[in-house]
Amino acid sequence: MNQKFPSILLENAVNELSALPGIGRKTALRLALYILRRDTDYADRLSSSIEALRHDVKYCRDCHNICDCDRCSICADPRRDHTMICVTGTIKEVMAIENTAQFHGVYHVLGGIISPIDGIGPADLEIDSLIQRVATGEVKEVMLALSTTMEGDTTNFFIFRKLSPYDVKVTVIARGVAVGDEIEYADEVTLGRSILNRVDFNDSMKP
Amino acid sequence: MNQKFPSILLENAVNELSALPGIGRKTALRLALYILRRDTDYADRLSSSIEALRHDVKYCRDCHNICDCDRCSICADPRRDHTMICVTGTIKEVMAIENTAQFHGVYHVLGGIISPIDGIGPADLEIDSLIQRVATGEVKEVMLALSTTMEGDTTNFFIFRKLSPYDVKVTVIARGVAVGDEIEYADEVTLGRSILNRVDFNDSMKP
Repeated sequence: MNQKFPSILLENAVNELSALPGIGRKTALRLALYILRRDTDYADRLSSSIEALRHDVKYCRDCHNICDCDRCSICADPRRDHTMICVTGTIKEVMAIENTAQFHGVYHVLGGIISPIDGIGPADLEIDSLIQRVATGEVKEVMLALSTTMEGDTTNFFIFRKLSPYDVKVTVIARGVAVGDEIEYADEVTLGRSILNRVDFNDSMKP
Repeated sequence: MNQKFPSILLENAVNELSALPGIGRKTALRLALYILRRDTDYADRLSSSIEALRHDVKYCRDCHNICDCDRCSICADPRRDHTMICVTGTIKEVMAIENTAQFHGVYHVLGGIISPIDGIGPADLEIDSLIQRVATGEVKEVMLALSTTMEGDTTNFFIFRKLSPYDVKVTVIARGVAVGDEIEYADEVTLGRSILNRVDFNDSMKP
């Protein structure tokens, strides 16, 4: 669509908004016209929140999760188990795991996973700083919670090899049939893995 | 989703982004994390373009289209036919009609259409200023190009009645556009055809 704009200011806003992922030029125009219709306060809040996010956000010196201070609220919490580290690819994955309320240790955000196609190698990720945390001897378990893709598996194995000299337990989150899924529609690889990794049934599994 | 955020700055940005139409909290989080990953220049350009759009954009004193000066480029263009006014509801509809390259007159943007459900009456729209433009005697034809909905038809008829004391031809774009469709989503060929096939407005068009 070779759209002519009645205003350069509108065209600029549409150009910048359409650079966002999943936002095409038509959607960007709709958003820009919505911003125009709303009070000026909203535009001010939106623009300053974007600026503050990009300029003032900090990354935790321990786990590389985003935070507002030098250390994130999870790493700074003495009630969390600091001998247990959950390794994730992204900040979003930390948020997803926190939402489950099933994990009480601390995190380590790699900032991505090894992906030769995207040009991301081990040196681009926070793997060395993970090894340093383990090297202090205070960590008892490293739980790998990366995406269950080829890239995630590669990264898991790379970290596992890197951690082998240290006295630390390395675990990986269970892969299996999702809760609520029908067995007959589960893919063969997932179903096969959940059979191999079957666990003892116990009273806590009472529905 | 009662999401806990690792950073107040991130939470603020997500709150403001999710106020945009069609952007839920999950999408807003994706956009915010994308902004974090991009260079600071992009966040600066995005936030300043939003601020400039809302604060510095002007509305044409003649047609109420948005523009960067007091008068829009269409109204200021001596090659356009100033005896022919196309009445639209929104700026987006002006852009849609300009894209057809079938119209060579000038515009008048009402800023909406009469819609009792949304509490929009004739007084909320730029109808008086349209009558004033016609009252100068320089306008030969007013072409109504509102959405072909009940609200659009009502607004058409209201304007037709208001213009009846004046010596001006009132036309309405042909219903090549399916009844019930929105102008801004019509394809260019159909929209162009309906401009060429506009018909005289008469009492039989009372909604």
